Parts: sequence; C-alpha cells; structure tokens
Amino acid sequence: MGLNLVYKILEKHLVEGQLIQGEPIGIKIDQTLTQDSTGTMTYLQLEAMGIDRVKTKRSVAFVDHNMLQQGFENADDHKYIQTVAAKYGVLFSKPGNGICHQVFLERFSTPGDTLIGSDSHTPTAGGVGMIAIGAGGLDVAVAMGGGAYFINAPKVCKINLTGKLSPMVSAKDVILEVLRKLTVKGGVGRVFEYGGEGVKTLSVPQRATITNMGAELGATTSIFPSDEKTFEYFKAQGREDEWKELLPDEDAVYDEEVVIDLEKLEPLAAKPHSPDNVEEIRTIGKIKVDQVAIGSCTNSSYEDLMKVAKILKGNKVHPDVSLVIAPGSRQVMEMISRNGALGDIISAGARILENSCGPCIGMGQAPGTEGVSLRTFNRNFYGRSGTLTAKVYLVSPETAAVSAITGVLTDPRELKADINIELPERFILDDSMILKPADTSAEVEVVRGPNIKPFPNGVALKNSLEGKNLLKVSDNITTDHIMPSNSKLLPYRSNVPYLADFCFNTVDTDFPARAKEYNGGFIVGGNNYGQGSSREHAALAPLYLGVKAVIVKSFARIHKANLINSGILPLTFENEEDYDTLELLDELEINNIDKDIYTGKLKVENKTKGTSFSVVADLSQREIETLLSGGKLNYTKELMKEGTENA
Amino acid sequence: MGLNLVYKILEKHLVEGQLIQGEPIGIKIDQTLTQDSTGTMTYLQLEAMGIDRVKTKRSVAFVDHNMLQQGFENADDHKYIQTVAAKYGVLFSKPGNGICHQVFLERFSTPGDTLIGSDSHTPTAGGVGMIAIGAGGLDVAVAMGGGAYFINAPKVCKINLTGKLSPMVSAKDVILEVLRKLTVKGGVGRVFEYGGEGVKTLSVPQRATITNMGAELGATTSIFPSDEKTFEYFKAQGREDEWKELLPDEDAVYDEEVVIDLEKLEPLAAKPHSPDNVEEIRTIGKIKVDQVAIGSCTNSSYEDLMKVAKILKGNKVHPDVSLVIAPGSRQVMEMISRNGALGDIISAGARILENSCGPCIGMGQAPGTEGVSLRTFNRNFYGRSGTLTAKVYLVSPETAAVSAITGVLTDPRELKADINIELPERFILDDSMILKPADTSAEVEVVRGPNIKPFPNGVALKNSLEGKNLLKVSDNITTDHIMPSNSKLLPYRSNVPYLADFCFNTVDTDFPARAKEYNGGFIVGGNNYGQGSSREHAALAPLYLGVKAVIVKSFARIHKANLINSGILPLTFENEEDYDTLELLDELEINNIDKDIYTGKLKVENKTKGTSFSVVADLSQREIETLLSGGKLNYTKELMKEGTENA
Repeated sequence: MGLNLVYKILEKHLVEGQLIQGEPIGIKIDQTLTQDSTGTMTYLQLEAMGIDRVKTKRSVAFVDHNMLQQGFENADDHKYIQTVAAKYGVLFSKPGNGICHQVFLERFSTPGDTLIGSDSHTPTAGGVGMIAIGAGGLDVAVAMGGGAYFINAPKVCKINLTGKLSPMVSAKDVILEVLRKLTVKGGVGRVFEYGGEGVKTLSVPQRATITNMGAELGATTSIFPSDEKTFEYFKAQGREDEWKELLPDEDAVYDEEVVIDLEKLEPLAAKPHSPDNVEEIRTIGKIKVDQVAIGSCTNSSYEDLMKVAKILKGNKVHPDVSLVIAPGSRQVMEMISRNGALGDIISAGARILENSCGPCIGMGQAPGTEGVSLRTFNRNFYGRSGTLTAKVYLVSPETAAVSAITGVLTDPRELKADINIELPERFILDDSMILKPADTSAEVEVVRGPNIKPFPNGVALKNSLEGKNLLKVSDNITTDHIMPSNSKLLPYRSNVPYLADFCFNTVDTDFPARAKEYNGGFIVGGNNYGQGSSREHAALAPLYLGVKAVIVKSFARIHKANLINSGILPLTFENEEDYDTLELLDELEINNIDKDIYTGKLKVENKTKGTSFSVVADLSQREIETLLSGGKLNYTKELMKEGTENA
Repeated sequence: MGLNLVYKILEKHLVEGQLIQGEPIGIKIDQTLTQDSTGTMTYLQLEAMGIDRVKTKRSVAFVDHNMLQQGFENADDHKYIQTVAAKYGVLFSKPGNGICHQVFLERFSTPGDTLIGSDSHTPTAGGVGMIAIGAGGLDVAVAMGGGAYFINAPKVCKINLTGKLSPMVSAKDVILEVLRKLTVKGGVGRVFEYGGEGVKTLSVPQRATITNMGAELGATTSIFPSDEKTFEYFKAQGREDEWKELLPDEDAVYDEEVVIDLEKLEPLAAKPHSPDNVEEIRTIGKIKVDQVAIGSCTNSSYEDLMKVAKILKGNKVHPDVSLVIAPGSRQVMEMISRNGALGDIISAGARILENSCGPCIGMGQAPGTEGVSLRTFNRNFYGRSGTLTAKVYLVSPETAAVSAITGVLTDPRELKADINIELPERFILDDSMILKPADTSAEVEVVRGPNIKPFPNGVALKNSLEGKNLLKVSDNITTDHIMPSNSKLLPYRSNVPYLADFCFNTVDTDFPARAKEYNGGFIVGGNNYGQGSSREHAALAPLYLGVKAVIVKSFARIHKANLINSGILPLTFENEEDYDTLELLDELEINNIDKDIYTGKLKVENKTKGTSFSVVADLSQREIETLLSGGKLNYTKELMKEGTENA
C-alpha cells in the first residue's frame, strides 16, 4: 500500500508513537520560525529551558507584526528578539525584511523537512513539500530545545486538481473554492495534500497561497509535492542544492478525496464575515468599493505584485478608492522596484505600505464606517479590520487590482489583459537583513526593555486545590474573550502582568482584581470553552492570576492543550446540571488529586453550598505528567535532565 | 527708501491697517492649505460660515497626518474632507499623494502670493518667494470665505548668506546654524528674509528646508527671493507660467541683519530636546545610533532622497540600526522608483514608509527605550517621538544616511563621496491624485462619519457672567496641558465632545466632569498661560465645557487670540496678589461687561469670599467686536451679511 506525501515525511520524522491515524505521535522538528508578536514569549520560554544553543537544523526569528511602533514597546521587543536570537543560535530577520512566511518560503523552505512556527499561517511552506504547522510558542521553544512536536496522526485528504486555471482566475480562487466546499471547520484533524495534473500548472507562490490559507479550513496543514516547478523556484532563488523531489507513491492511499476542476473555476470572493462565505464575483454584483488592500502572507509574492502592476499600468485608481499595497518581502520590493513595476503601481495612485503584515492583522488601514474593503488577505472576521461596521471581502490580487480601477467589485475577466507572469531566471538574492547568530552565546548580552516581563511559570500540581469560583461564564467563550488582542494590547504580548489586567475584560472587568484579591481559584464555564485563536496568552494570563483549574462543560482542543502546557488543570462536568448549582465566589476544593487523576475522575466539594460533584479529567499519560511537573516547560526541563532528547 | 521682499508682498495684499512695523494689518490671502488633523475642524467651520464656494484663488486640502488608520475615525475624516472639499471648491490631495508642504511646493507654490495653512510648517512655500504663514484652522476657514488675515506688521530680519556650502554640508545645517544663533524664541514677531550671494547657490528644495524649519524660530514666516534658480524649479515642474521674478529693492531696508558664511558651516545636529540645542557633529562624538529616520516636510524632497540613495548605494545599513525612510510625495517616490535610486535604498536595507508625516508627528516608529534616533525632521521635543526616554538628534539627510551605515553619529564628510544632485530637466508630472472640486456644490453630498461632531460655537458675550471657579492652575500651563495631543487623541480632532473629556487631563482629571456639573464657569491661572502649540482645540474644548472667561496673570499670545476667536473672555489680574485669594469652586460674577469692556477694566466679585478685585481686558476694537459677536466665526458671518468682503 503506497504512502502519501504526508505520511512519507511523518514516517521519516517519527520519534514517538505509532503512525496510525488518530493516534498521538511525536515528530522531530527540523526548522522553526517565530514572528514578533508571539516571539518574545517564545524566546523567554526558550531562555527558561536552560539550554545553550538551539538544537534544530535551522531556526529563524522574524519581525513583521508590530511594525507601526507607537511606543517604545515594539522596538524593545525587536531588540530583545535580535539579541536573544544571536545568543541562542537563531537567525534574525530584521524588521523591513518582510513577512515571515514569504521570506521563509523564498530563503529557507526545504522539501521534506518539518517546520513549526508560532503563527497560524506557517503551512505556507507546505507549498514546496514541507510539513509546516502552526503551533503555540511554547511548542516552538521546546522544538528549538530539541524536543519533539506532538500531534495526532492526521487524516489525509487529497485535493485532486484537474485542468488549468483560466486567465484572471488565480490560486486564491482555488483555496476560496476549497473553503466553500469544506467550510472553516472542514480541516479539523486533517492534512490536505494537493495532487493531480493541475498541480503542474501552478507555480510555487501560487501553491503557497493555497497552503497558506488552508489554515482557514482549521487543518493541521496543507502540502504540495516538490516537483519540476519547485526546482525552477529553488533555482531562481539560488538554492538548487536545497531542492529535492518529493512525490507521493503512485499507489498512495488517502482517507478522503476532493476534486477541483481548475478549468471551471471563476473569480470568487469570501463575503463578510467568514472566509468560507464564498460566492462568484459575477453573482455578488458591482458593489461600490471604498478600499482595496493588497498584501499579507497570502498574496504578496513577486508574482502577485507583478500581476497587480500589469493590471494597474496605464490606469488610475478610482477617485473614491484608497488602494494600499504591502509587498511581502524586501526581495519582492527590490525586484519590482528595479524592473519598473513599482513605478507603474505608484503611477496608478496606490499607497505603498511597508513590507509587513500590516492591515491584515488590524495594524492600520482600518476602513471607514460601513466601508467596503476588498482584501487579498486570509481572514475577514467581524471587526478584524479595526472597524466593526466594515464589510471585508477576501479576493485575488487580480480582482483587487481591477476593482481598484473601476471603483466597484469587478470580475477581473472583464479586463481583457494579458497578465501572464514568468518566474524570473534569478531573484535578487541578498540576505543582508538576515543576521547570523553569534558564534558563541557568551559574547551576546540579551537586551530586555522595561516592558519585557518574566512569563508566569506553572507549579507542580498539588494533591489538593482549593479556592473560590472566580468567574462563571456561559457557552462558546473564545480566546478573544479570555485574553483580548487588539492594536492597543498587541504591544504588550511580552508583558503578561500587564495583559492579565485585561483578562476577560469584555465579560467581566472585575475578574482580574477579584482573582488577585482571593489569590487565585477556579473558573467555571459552559460548552466549547476556549474556541478561536491558538494564543497561549489565554492560558498564561489566568495562570498569572492564580487560576488553578478550569471546570467547563466542554473544551476547544487547542485551548485545553494550552491550559495543560501552562499547568492549569482542565476539567469537565460529569453531569452538566452541576454547572447550574455553582455560584460566583463559592468556595471549592478538590482532594486526592495525586491518585484520582489517573482514574480520570475527581470530586469537587462546594464548601459554600455543602454539596459535591464529579468532574472528568480527560488526560493522556503525557498530559498527566506535564501537569504534575507544573506545565510543559518544567516537564521538558525534567526530561532534558534525564537525558531524554525527544521530550 | 527701498522695500524688502516681505513688505513688497504685504503692500500688494494690504486690505486693512497701515504698514507700520508693530501695527495690526489685514492682508488678502491668495491661497490656503489644510492638513487632515486640523482640516476636519477647519471645514466644519467653513460650513458654518454659510458660503457656497471658497473665494480664494486656490485652496487645497491635504491628507498626510492621520494615515496609520487604526480605527474608522481616520478614513471617515478623509472621506469628509474629500466630499466637503468637492462641495466648496477646494482641491483634494488624496492620502498617498504626499506631505502637504512638499506637494504644495511642487505643484501649487506661487512667487508673490500669500498663503495661510492650518499647519505650523506652512512657511515651507517661502522657499519660492511666497508669504506663507501657519495659522489656526478658523483663520484658514475665514480666509477661504474671503476674509483677510490679521497679523502685526512684522520686523524683517535679513539673513545674509555668503559663500557656498562645502560638500556634505547642507541646507539643514544652515537652518540649524540660524537656530543656534537666534534660539527658538528668536523669531517672535519677525519674518526672516534670506539674501546675499549665497542664495544663488541654493536650490528651491534646499531653500524650502530652511524656510520650513524657520517655524522653529517662532517666526511669522521666512522667505527667499524668486530668481533664476526658482525658474529652473518651476520649469522642471512644468509650471513656467506661474513663475515670476521677485527680488527686494537694491536699497531695501531691514530691521535686523544676520550674516551666515556658508563656506564655514559644518555638519550640525540639534541635540535632545530642543531644535536650538545645536552643536557640530564633529564635537558631539561618535555616539551609538539605534534608529535613523529620513523624511518629513523638512527633508523629503527628490534632491534629499537622491543624496541618501547615492550615499547608501553599495553599502548596507548597520545591523543594529533601523533605517526608515518616508519620501515626501508621490512625485518623489515615483521619480526615485523609476530611476533606480529606490532600488539602491532598499538594497542597503532601509524600511520604506508611506509618503506621509509619519514618525515626525509621533505616528509610528517610536524608538526603543533610551534609543538614540537621528532624524531629518524639524522638532525633537521631549517625548514627541512617542518614547519619553528616547534621545532624538535633528540632522541633515547626509548625516543621517552616513550614520545609518556606520551605526554611530558620523560627520558625513568622512565618507569621501560625490553626491552632487542635479535637478531633473522635468519631474514626473501627474496630478491624478489631486481631485478637482465639483462644478457646483449642489451635486455633492458631504459624508460625515459618526466621529465627526459639530464644533462648539461661541455665544454673544453677555452683560454679566457668573459661575464657579472650575480650576486653578499655576504658571506656564501649555496647550498640551489644556488639550493633550497624542497618537491616541489625534484621531478625535473632529470630535470636540470626546476630546473635551481629556481637557486638562494631565493636571486634574476631574475638571471636565466638574465643568459639566456646574454648567461651566471660570478658569484661573498664573503667568504665560497657554504657551506652546497653536492648537485651537485648547480653546474649543473649554468652550464646549462652558468656560466663560479665563482669568490669569498673563497669556501666551496665540492662545489668547484663540480664546477670543472662540468667544471666551481673556482677562488678567490687575494685582497679581488677587490670584492668591481665589479658591476652587468660589462663586464669581462679572457685571456691566457691555460698558466696562471698552474701558479695559472689569470688576470680579467673589461671592463666596465676599470680596472683589479688578481684572484687565486688553482687547483691540476688533477683538471686542469679535467677543460681542460670540467669536470669530459669528463675527465673520455678521460682517459678510453687511457685505464687507474683507472681514
């Protein structure tokens, strides 16, 4: 029985467990990446692990998120990351060098390697045949320390591409079509492996657009084979040496298959407010557009920008439209600057933003009230643009550029233009903004600005836990509720004590003060607690505030893992009715934890009410050990002491 | 007795008063400009004046300040300005077209014309022989309505330039030298007229750097003659028609004269935290640099950026330096993009920011903690960069670029490079981002976002004023105390009700609530009340809160004028000891205002203490009439009704 590409790579990297779909496995990580908004915390955790140098083949620290720099915090974080990277053997990509996923694709991606990155769009590198997964910062720190990364062996869904895209239909339309078919939940527990004849018609940047936005499917990752097209890309990047062919076996087996006929695809848009709310541009109609934004890790490659330049050349942006363009990397920016394309873009009336994530993460360029914004980005969640009343449509660069000229949402096929873009023979190759680490760690002093605070570290789980019920929330609490993230709080990602004062701010502004007053305690919640983004800060802030256990009806998967990683006990009601008996400030107590935790069932006494109820601790052996150690960091350190490399 | 250039132009524009130094005069205004952070208020005031179309020869609305756009407010303001400009006959320069002063210089400046602009660096256009003055937004609105602009006929100080600048010494060093000689107070009541043989050696952009930063002298404005060099510039801008020669009479008389030998000038820097804290780079020493920022209305011309590109070409930015560059206009950006200079800049490792004011006004790129930042900007006030502990040095583009490479403050003459820049034969001429107004106002609907609130309008001064003493402050209160301005409040410049809640925030956070509770009242202060920036919001916010009169030991000039313009009575103690008798919430009353105001002396009764004291109302006839009308806007409207054009 032939292996698919995913299991071929997993097999080569397997260090723990068995490669049986659904089973937990540990895989060796070859490369890591971080960006700055998650990176400071990741490197603080790396420092706490007490190693000298990273043990990965290659680790890269990027700065691309907090680039507006409205106070000292951002520049301090950049300096911290620069110096800590130099000390621990990590490459540092200076602010201005570009968006992590774009630069990684250009300069570091390697077929057949594994990569984890502290950013959900890490799967971008799947475009060249890597297993590239977005992970929590602590997971990335552990991987840098030489530890394995744990996932459940995924289902592999083949996306069989047939035919060839029509003119003005693009890779973005492919992934929008996949999202329409499978929805934002369709990827859970899955890796999408692209195959079929259509693959050969797609360039590496096009493939990377597709794997990038696979994140919106909720997938573990997405991957393309490494073939002739991949070789061409590596050659143009001067990295022929790092290329190798990587294909699935001829008789590879897949768990599922979806067929997409590229021939039949039309230009699509994801309408407000979800990436899977997809419809043909043709049928949405010519709605008036206020803003067009081109860029982000999804659509900011040389190829994307050249298409945009060809469309804009000789045209002018509509008077009522603000067109903003952020190239994905310094390489892209220099290429289009040298070849005249940038001149054409400027001449058309575009605003050129810095190479960074920028408006995609709400860092600037918020639309006006009820503004319609077409964006080549990957997410159009409600409010993410910075304007609650804005209507954001996710589209291809072609659709964006044509609509910027017409002033209304326009099917780009209406512009009868030839915009075929050839890969350059050779990109401009200049890694001078990627700083090499110091030869020895001793020669580097890590610079820590006043906003960079030690992160809270868990303590070994005690035999009994007692304290007050500090907060009772209902169903579907997201990590945005638990630890809000916005342009005002994002500069404080390296300062958990500061962030903690905003913990649950949208739900109950008194929670942080109450938690401090009672020296921590418990949180009680409903179903699907902790859904949404993977941010670790939603566990670290409660940890800082002394939260010992969270008792809910059910957990969202990643947040539960983050609680365990932080050393907070995640529990679910055995009988959901017990939720109703609990009131704010009830005094709770759990005993015999050292024994009961192995049975998966604990008893909670409500001393205020004089009652008790059962809760379930659904934990693997590894998770129990992690909690007993006081979280993943402490657990990893212990394993390291024991000389177990693959912690 | 020959006329100097300043009085030649003033004479041609005199509509009221006599041209005798020190006397109040009204001058006709040919052109106006606004930027967006002051512009929304200005156009709200223009709307309130009830005219159909502006009566100036040319008025231009720019957007260059609030371009980060972190919420809907900025984009809404831009849309408001775009539509109100279209309605009232004002040209609209779209966001992305560039910094107001740079674009105005390139496309609109006219020798011999008068210009007022709602930005303190409006004197930039003095580089081509205009009388260009920074003014309050209401003054600009009145000028657009056809009203005269009132100043006291200034002293004219000739700056006699001899010789020629040495290589790597630049126009920035000239104005830094003037600042060292005359200090930031040296320009009060003066216009600086540049003359002498040295003038011919300076290009228009160089001259504009000098007139621009003349604002830091506290001068009314600065001016250069319009000569052959000016003609070359106009020719390259395709505006030969708008050029005319403009020189002082051979036997022109000046009130003062300062001689600067260009030959002897060395590269200079203004050290923290004042533009007049100037010293030779050579003697300051090679301090380590964290950030270099090039741009702003002072140094972002084609010539400046070309110099920077020539210096950077083939070099790399120091690993520890973040170099950010914001070109001054789309013309500059397209020029350097087309000719390869931008490629050289990117290749060196610079971060390219949007064409806007950006970091100069604290909009992004705040240095790190205790960071040393070299900036080609015009102000290095404490905290202005966004980082209180930062040390900002103001330098020339040459010094900035060379230091970005070496990583330490470096005398640019150490780099033995030839960076002579020739003016292009023809700039790229493309005004497609400058939108023409509608032909008739009826066809335009003004779009007003929810953050755009009606501005508070004064009411006719009553015969008696009574109320509580709402606030008692000491000496040297600045407009920053009265109405703080920072990146968090700047988006609210069109929302006085919101801003008012931050009025006196750094002095007494309860003031706004107290003022509202007691339905307004009085403010009591010490000496030099209202010093600092010219912002009208420092009068409008108290007006909104119901402040009727301000009683202080002495006023700063511009703030007093702003109080009068807003219809708030400015009074000074006849005997300063009476200040000591007043307490918070004392009930005060002033009667017989209608008669006493003409005598210049009023009586204040302190009903709480049962005492009374005399105050001085030092007001001209025009100012009394303004107050009786309820502020300048109402006064202007009344005059217009009476058919007096030159209000």
